[in-house]
Amino acid sequence: MSSAKTPPVSPLAPKSVPELPPIGGVGIATAQAGIRYSGRTDVLYLALQPGTQAAGVFTRSKCPSAPVDWCREALASEGARALIVNSGNANAFTGARGRDAVALTAKIGAEAAGCRPDEIFIASTGVIGEPLDATKFEGVLTDCAARTETGPEAWAAAAQAIMTTDTFPKLATRKATIDGTEVTINGIAKGAGMIAPDMATMLSFVFTDAALPQVVLQTLLSVGTRTSFNCVTVDGDTSTSDTLMLFATGAAGNAPVTDAGDERLSGFRAALDDLLIELAQLVAKDGEGARKFVTVNVKGATGDASAHRIAMSIANSPLVKTAIAGEDANWGRVVMAVGKAGEPADRDRLAIWFGDVRVAREGARDPDYSEEAASAVMRESDVSVTVDLGLGDGSARVWTCDLTKGYIEINGDYRS
Amino acid sequence: MSSAKTPPVSPLAPKSVPELPPIGGVGIATAQAGIRYSGRTDVLYLALQPGTQAAGVFTRSKCPSAPVDWCREALASEGARALIVNSGNANAFTGARGRDAVALTAKIGAEAAGCRPDEIFIASTGVIGEPLDATKFEGVLTDCAARTETGPEAWAAAAQAIMTTDTFPKLATRKATIDGTEVTINGIAKGAGMIAPDMATMLSFVFTDAALPQVVLQTLLSVGTRTSFNCVTVDGDTSTSDTLMLFATGAAGNAPVTDAGDERLSGFRAALDDLLIELAQLVAKDGEGARKFVTVNVKGATGDASAHRIAMSIANSPLVKTAIAGEDANWGRVVMAVGKAGEPADRDRLAIWFGDVRVAREGARDPDYSEEAASAVMRESDVSVTVDLGLGDGSARVWTCDLTKGYIEINGDYRS
Repeated sequence: MSSAKTPPVSPLAPKSVPELPPIGGVGIATAQAGIRYSGRTDVLYLALQPGTQAAGVFTRSKCPSAPVDWCREALASEGARALIVNSGNANAFTGARGRDAVALTAKIGAEAAGCRPDEIFIASTGVIGEPLDATKFEGVLTDCAARTETGPEAWAAAAQAIMTTDTFPKLATRKATIDGTEVTINGIAKGAGMIAPDMATMLSFVFTDAALPQVVLQTLLSVGTRTSFNCVTVDGDTSTSDTLMLFATGAAGNAPVTDAGDERLSGFRAALDDLLIELAQLVAKDGEGARKFVTVNVKGATGDASAHRIAMSIANSPLVKTAIAGEDANWGRVVMAVGKAGEPADRDRLAIWFGDVRVAREGARDPDYSEEAASAVMRESDVSVTVDLGLGDGSARVWTCDLTKGYIEINGDYRS
Repeated sequence: MSSAKTPPVSPLAPKSVPELPPIGGVGIATAQAGIRYSGRTDVLYLALQPGTQAAGVFTRSKCPSAPVDWCREALASEGARALIVNSGNANAFTGARGRDAVALTAKIGAEAAGCRPDEIFIASTGVIGEPLDATKFEGVLTDCAARTETGPEAWAAAAQAIMTTDTFPKLATRKATIDGTEVTINGIAKGAGMIAPDMATMLSFVFTDAALPQVVLQTLLSVGTRTSFNCVTVDGDTSTSDTLMLFATGAAGNAPVTDAGDERLSGFRAALDDLLIELAQLVAKDGEGARKFVTVNVKGATGDASAHRIAMSIANSPLVKTAIAGEDANWGRVVMAVGKAGEPADRDRLAIWFGDVRVAREGARDPDYSEEAASAVMRESDVSVTVDLGLGDGSARVWTCDLTKGYIEINGDYRS
């Protein structure tokens, strides 16, 4: 809401914002459609050259937003020609009118881009339960299509236009080679920011000029999500609108690759995974009220999936997160979070570290434990928690932020 | 910790504390053993007459405390002669020394009560990871055994002795008849209070003079827990020490009953269930920082278990809980919490109420929605959230409290 006070930039924001290079086949325009905000851009129109392939992963919510339903269906037919993202209204829980609004948006977008509606991908973030007036896109998208740009300023503007209460824009870029051809990967994201009655939504869009078929993109994205966006949590709440999409224009003209496991893709895979991790970490660093960035490592579990569930149990525990906010090396709460995960664990084999300071081992306080050393670790803005279950080879790593009064302030909107 | 400032009494505390009548076969004494606190009682010794039967339900944590392990084993052999509870030290995550400490406590208790160690039940709450010096019970328990009392003051003292940072003592009482014989049920509980590095622990002990065999008690307690303590949540974190026990002395001399489903127990079952619900609600009303008591009703689910998981997803959602703290009728967050539960739900059939104000129906905002009416409901100290999934007959009801800055203050112990 334009009248809301602007929250201070997260203390965990990167010192500098990367400049994103052009991606062949991608053109960008942003606009003010007046969806809800005034005095700021609220529409991103991103044109994709013919032949662009798309992949996506979406919220697992049983109550997804209308745009999520649309994207899932649109992926069934190959090809992507434009991405349209608006902030200010999530078009979620809007019933039949929501479906009509997204269909109208696609129709207007298709006319602007000169393509079929099912080549238009749509994401919306902002207030929910309010009907989205898609007629506001009329004229706006055609105008956008006529003035797309490709430089770093356009990418920066794209990252800005999709923000709600993010305190900083989130951009990342990587280079890789596929069979000797250099390709570029650019990504933008928005994190969990919220002004009541808005809803936190994670949106992220990644673009590459690599020439890759949809099936390969989908595999790379799904696998990459496992170690990046699916390993980040702010408060354990899942938006109805979470969307991560990967678009490949093919402008780089690399040799055809048809298998995601192809050895020639190893560099691209590594670069994509790395970029996804960077974007995911940026989301955690802009979590509501975040003052500390937290990495949770779990090892010695009976399997990787088990380790992941234990790590998420730790990362989502309000007691662990408030302890970290309070710079309190409270390993008892870590034990609690391990215990409640429901995964195999043996109390008497547990070892726990904060940073590189081992605070507990063999199910009891480490005899060499130094309160002073642990406190020094807790005062850092980046804090790691490591748990060794001592049972097997399963491991996982997830990221989160601390839980502070700022979270309550942002989400509580106290009236009394 | 004695030096910590005393938090104000929860605004949700009952206006008056009930006076608990004597229970035949139960004698109570409290003492200052100096476990951790000074200037307050920290030991409850509760003598049970020969022939007393016991039942218990305990934390599902994979890392339970040493006393929880002890009670589980002690239940395997029939009979209970004393309950010993200490506050100040949870004897959790203390390794082999924790097992030794609980065994020594039982030995000292058995000498005081004149019984076998496995007739002694033990619970501990307070700091974790610190070895518990059980030699502090020497003399103290023998002294307690020599001066047990039975009146309302003794019950009030019992509820006081087991508090950590609870802001009010929790007591409840009920009468029932079994086949014409009047029996009494008294219960005490402590809730989730915490001073870093303490750990929240839910302890509750229920006593009756009814004559009932262990197998019947265990069934009644397990079934009663499903609709009471298993339906209450403060922050979704599960203690390593959660303990709920039911003791029956038999002093009422009612006719023998051997089956928990016996029709003659219907009044007792109802009274027990009602008492367990009252105690569970008191725990939610004393949740850290609680300013509002929240009842979540889910109906129209595909089954009761599904309804329960959806209700807990709503009750544990930080976004729902902060909205309620902010007196914001934010039904979008309720939709979010329904969606993330992973249970069957159809966005377009959902209806949501705050209090008796329907805010959404058929997957969209209720056309008759009145912001004013909804806001009036949210300003009450008791707030109910009702969701109708419109799919089947499954229903559930759970209780929680709002999430306020007070929670962060109590658990965050800010050092910066």
